[in-house]
Amino acid sequence: MQTISSWADSAPRLIAVAAGRAPADLVLKGGTWVNVHTRECLDNHDLAIADGRFAYCGPDASHCIGPDTQVIEVAGRFMIPGLCDAHMHIESGMLTPAEFARAVIPHGTTTMFTDPHEIANVLGLRGVRLMHDEALLQPVNIFTQMPSCAPSAPGLETTGYEITPEDVAEAMGWPGIIGLGEMMNFPGVVNADPKMLAEIAATQAAGKTVGGHYASPDLGPAFHAYAAGGPADDHEGTCEADAIARVRLGMRSMMRLGSAWYDVESQITAVTEKGLDPRNFILCTDDCHSGTLVNAGHMNRVLRHAIACGCDPLVALQMCTINTASHFGLERELGSIAPGRRADVILTSDLTALPIETVIARGQVVAENGQITVDCPHLDWPEDARATVHLGKTLADTDFEIPAPEGANHVTAKVIGVVENQAPTKALVRELPVVDGRIEGDAAQDVCQIALVERHRATGEVQNAFVSGFGYQGNMAIASTVAHDSHHMIVVGTARADMAAAANHLGDLGGGITVFRDGVELASVPLPVAGLMSDSPAAEVAAQAQAMVEAMATCGCTLNNAYMQHSLLALVVIPELRISDMGLVDVTRFELTDLIES
Amino acid sequence: MQTISSWADSAPRLIAVAAGRAPADLVLKGGTWVNVHTRECLDNHDLAIADGRFAYCGPDASHCIGPDTQVIEVAGRFMIPGLCDAHMHIESGMLTPAEFARAVIPHGTTTMFTDPHEIANVLGLRGVRLMHDEALLQPVNIFTQMPSCAPSAPGLETTGYEITPEDVAEAMGWPGIIGLGEMMNFPGVVNADPKMLAEIAATQAAGKTVGGHYASPDLGPAFHAYAAGGPADDHEGTCEADAIARVRLGMRSMMRLGSAWYDVESQITAVTEKGLDPRNFILCTDDCHSGTLVNAGHMNRVLRHAIACGCDPLVALQMCTINTASHFGLERELGSIAPGRRADVILTSDLTALPIETVIARGQVVAENGQITVDCPHLDWPEDARATVHLGKTLADTDFEIPAPEGANHVTAKVIGVVENQAPTKALVRELPVVDGRIEGDAAQDVCQIALVERHRATGEVQNAFVSGFGYQGNMAIASTVAHDSHHMIVVGTARADMAAAANHLGDLGGGITVFRDGVELASVPLPVAGLMSDSPAAEVAAQAQAMVEAMATCGCTLNNAYMQHSLLALVVIPELRISDMGLVDVTRFELTDLIES
Repeated sequence: MQTISSWADSAPRLIAVAAGRAPADLVLKGGTWVNVHTRECLDNHDLAIADGRFAYCGPDASHCIGPDTQVIEVAGRFMIPGLCDAHMHIESGMLTPAEFARAVIPHGTTTMFTDPHEIANVLGLRGVRLMHDEALLQPVNIFTQMPSCAPSAPGLETTGYEITPEDVAEAMGWPGIIGLGEMMNFPGVVNADPKMLAEIAATQAAGKTVGGHYASPDLGPAFHAYAAGGPADDHEGTCEADAIARVRLGMRSMMRLGSAWYDVESQITAVTEKGLDPRNFILCTDDCHSGTLVNAGHMNRVLRHAIACGCDPLVALQMCTINTASHFGLERELGSIAPGRRADVILTSDLTALPIETVIARGQVVAENGQITVDCPHLDWPEDARATVHLGKTLADTDFEIPAPEGANHVTAKVIGVVENQAPTKALVRELPVVDGRIEGDAAQDVCQIALVERHRATGEVQNAFVSGFGYQGNMAIASTVAHDSHHMIVVGTARADMAAAANHLGDLGGGITVFRDGVELASVPLPVAGLMSDSPAAEVAAQAQAMVEAMATCGCTLNNAYMQHSLLALVVIPELRISDMGLVDVTRFELTDLIES
Repeated sequence: MQTISSWADSAPRLIAVAAGRAPADLVLKGGTWVNVHTRECLDNHDLAIADGRFAYCGPDASHCIGPDTQVIEVAGRFMIPGLCDAHMHIESGMLTPAEFARAVIPHGTTTMFTDPHEIANVLGLRGVRLMHDEALLQPVNIFTQMPSCAPSAPGLETTGYEITPEDVAEAMGWPGIIGLGEMMNFPGVVNADPKMLAEIAATQAAGKTVGGHYASPDLGPAFHAYAAGGPADDHEGTCEADAIARVRLGMRSMMRLGSAWYDVESQITAVTEKGLDPRNFILCTDDCHSGTLVNAGHMNRVLRHAIACGCDPLVALQMCTINTASHFGLERELGSIAPGRRADVILTSDLTALPIETVIARGQVVAENGQITVDCPHLDWPEDARATVHLGKTLADTDFEIPAPEGANHVTAKVIGVVENQAPTKALVRELPVVDGRIEGDAAQDVCQIALVERHRATGEVQNAFVSGFGYQGNMAIASTVAHDSHHMIVVGTARADMAAAANHLGDLGGGITVFRDGVELASVPLPVAGLMSDSPAAEVAAQAQAMVEAMATCGCTLNNAYMQHSLLALVVIPELRISDMGLVDVTRFELTDLIES
C-alpha cells in the first residue's frame, strides 16, 4: 500500500544515480546539509533523490542531473530531515488520518507514530485496521502502534470491543504496525498480569517496540518493576527526575508538548543542565487539538519550544528525527538525510525560528510556504465505522431522572468535582434537593447532572450522577461521544429535556459534540467516523470546535479547558471519582460506588 | 541452544524481583554503576540479577535479596557493561569459537560479532553453520555474520564452496545470525552486481545488519554509490576523513585495533578533536592472533587504546558497548546495565587502566582475575570438517618444477614482491636462471619459489611461481593452509624437496602451518579444523605460532609480520601480483597473467 518501494528494490537505481550513471528525479542544490548523524551543518552541499529516497548527499551532485531532473536551488538555506512525532493519538485532533496529515504536513511533520487507542475502544481491532489502512495511503509516513489497553479499566467499564493478546499478535504482522501502543495498565505490569505480559511478549517476539505509559510519581521498586516488564519508552514523565530515571533504566524519555501537555521544559534540563547523553531523549505531542494544528503548529512547535528551553538546535533536532527513528528500529529508513533513506526534507532559512518553507516527503514537494501541494487520500470508511452511535431508543427526559430514596426530601450525594487545570477530579459530597421523588442538581452549589449513555451495544442504558465545577446556568446540556477511554456518550446538563435533545441529536449526527440551550442547538462538531473523528478539513473542524467552546462559555462555563474536562469525566483510570457505563466509579479504590452517600 | 531465556519468558520473574516479591539469583552491592545510556557514573548502586538478566538497577537492592541470593560486595569498584567486539574473524586467532571464547572472556569480552568468512571458503554454508552452532554453545554472546563474498574474486580463484544469495537467505533464519558479513566486493556493489545486491536485499528483508568493507581511499561518487547500496558500517577506514565520510552518509565507523590493524588513533580524532556526535563510532578488532589474545588482550586492549588516544573513558566505553548493540538492533538485549538486558558486567577498579577483575556473563561469574571459571563447550566437529586437506596424491619435487621455454638459458619472469609492513605486493620483474630446462629461484636476488597447491577438490594441481622479499636462505620451505581467501595451500621455499615434504606433512596434519629445513620439520602449528583452526587452548597455539615464526627467522626471514605476509600471497583482491589455484593473478587488471614476461 505504501507508495515507496523498499531500499533494496531501489538500490540498483540509487547506486546508478550516486555513481553518475543515471539521472536523479530531484536535486537540491547548494544548501546547508544538517547532518543528524554527525551533528554538523555542512554548507554548500547537494542532495540527489531517486525513487523517493536519497541517492547522493555530498558536495556536488552535478553528475546526478539529467535533462529531466528537477532542480531546486536551495540557495544556502538549511536542509533538515522531516520531523517525527514519536507518540500521538490522531483522534485527539478529531480528524481522520488523512485530514490530520493534511493539517500537519505544512508544519514539516513527515513521520508520525500513532496509537489509535480511541477507535480501538469503539471498533476494536477492525477500527485499528481502518486507521492503519488510511495511514498507509498518505504521502508521509504514518506508523501505527497497536493499542494495548482496551478497556483501560477492565471490570469498571464496557468498551465497544476489547483488545486481546491474540489481537496484538495478529496486528504485528500488518505492514504499518511499528509496535505496541502505550502500556497504560502499569499496575498490571508491576503485578505481572498475564494478559499485559502476553501483549508485550507478542510485540517483542515480532522485534517491535513496546510503548510505555507510567503515570505515577513513584520512582521506587514499582517503577523498576515496570521497566523490567519491557516497555521501551515513556511519555508520562513530568519533571527532570522522571526523565533521568527513565533513561538510566534504558528507556527513552519522550518529552511532550501537546495542546494541553507541557512536559518538555521541566524535563529537558536533564540534557541542557545535567549534561546527559541526549540520544535517548525524544520529542512528541501525544495529543493535539485541531485548533493547535491550525493556529500553532505540530512538531515544528515542539522543536521551537525545545530550542527556546535552551537546547542546542541540532540536539533538539536530533530529538525529533534520528533519535525517534532509532528508537523504532527505523534509523536506516528515515530520520536523517543520508543515502537510502526516505527523502523527507524541510527547507528552512533559520534553525531557531524554523520557518517551514518547503516540505519534501519521499522526494515529492508536499508543502510550500504553509500550503499543502499534494492529495491526502481518504479511505472509503465503511458504514459500520460511520454508524457507531447505537442508542437503542430515542431518549426522553425520564431517562435522566435520578430517583430519591422513598420519602426523602433531600439527600447527601457523591458529586464529581472538576478541578481547574487538572486531570484528576475530586470526590465531593453535597446536600441535594429532592423534587417529586427525584434528586435534582443545584445551580447555587454549581452542581448539575451528568449521564453516561451507553452507545456501543444499543442497550438503552443511562447511568446518571452529579458533577460540579462547570458553572453552567439556565437550561442547557452538552453531549459528547468523545468520552475517554471507552467512548460512550457523556451528557452534562442542567435540564433533562436538553440532555435528551442533545443526546438524540448526537445519535442523528453519528457522534461528535453538541451544545443545547433551551431546546435549541447552539453548536455542534459532527464526528461521524467512530463518533471520534471528522473527515472534514482541520480548519473547518477547528472552527466548529471553537464555536462549541464558545457555546459552553455562553452557558456559563468558565473553565480553561472545559471541553477536555468534559471528555475526561469517564476516564476511570484517573482519580478520584468518575462515571462509566457501569455506574459511579471510585478511582481511588478502583471500585463501583453508590451515588448516595451512606 | 542459547542458555538464556528471552526477556519475555523471564519478565514475570524479573518484575517480581524488582518489586521485591521474589529473591534475585545474584546481587552486586555498592558499586559505581557506569550507565552508558546517560553517560554517567552513579556511586553506591546495586544490581539485582535473575534468570541471567538484570532485574533491578538502583540505589538499594536489599528488597531483592533472599536466603539463597548470592551477594558480591563490589566495594566501590566500577560496574561496566561487558565489552562487545563489533566485527571480527575468529579464524584469525587460529582457534575454534570455544577456544577463542575461553581466551577472551578473562579480558572482559562478553559479546562478539563474528564473520566466519574463512571457513565459508573451505566448507561453504555448512562450515558457517558449524561455527554458528559452536558459538551458541558458549557462556557469552557470539553472533554470526553470514559471509557475503566467497569467492572474493570470482573467476580468479576456486574456493572449496561458494556462497550464494540463496545461502544468505537461508542463514538469515538461523537463531544466531545477526546480519551479513563484510561486503568486500565493493566494486560489485558500486556496479550494482545483482548477486551482491541480492545478498544485501535478503539481509535487509530479514531486518538484519549489512556489514560493509570499502577498502579504497576514493571518497567520491564510488564511495557514495557503495553507501547507496546498503552496507551499514565499515571498518576499512584508516584516516579521520574516512571516518567522517562514513558517518555523514549514515554508516557506522568501525575503528579497529587488531594484531596488525592500527586504525583507531588515526580516526578517533573525528570525535576527540572534531567533536562529532560519538554515537556512530564503534570499536572492533577485525583480526587478532592467538599471541595477541594471550599476551595483550582483546577488546580491553582496544578500549584502553582508545582512552590513551584522548577519548573520554565513558565515550570510549559506549563505543564498545551500547553503540555496538544499537547498531545490531540489540540495544534492549545487551550492551548496557539496565533492566531486562543480559547481565554482562565487568568489575574494575579503574576506568582507564581497566584491570579486568571479575567478569560476569548472563549473571554467571565467568572469569576472576584473568582466570576463566566456566566451561566453553566444544562442538563435536564432524570428520568432514577435520579432513579438509585433499591433495589427491603425494606431492613430489617434480610437482614444483617450473619448465623454461625450449632452449632458454635464462628468462625474464614476473615475481611477487613482498613489501615490508604493507599488504599490497609489487609486481616485480627479474632475470632468473634456467637449469636443466627448469627456471630456478635466485638467492642472490632474494627470489624463491611459491606454489599454490589445490586442496579442496583433490585435483592434485600445483601452480608455481616466484616470490621475493622473505630473505630465505639454504634449503627450506614453509607451507600453510591458511591462505586467504580461498585457503588452498601456499608453499614458499628455496628447495623443491622441502616444499614437497612440507606440503605432504600438512596433508598428514589435516592443515596448519609447517616449516621445513633440509628435509627436517622445524616447527608446526596443526590446525585440524578446516585447516584453519585448532581446538587446543590459545596459549598452546600461541606458543606453536611463536615457534613457527622463530623457525621462519631461522631460515633467514627478516620481515616484521612474515607469517601474515605468507598467508596473504593468494589474496587476489589486493594489488599488485598474487597467486591463485588458477595461476598468477595481476590484481591491478583483475586478470590471470603469464609467469614469463613477454
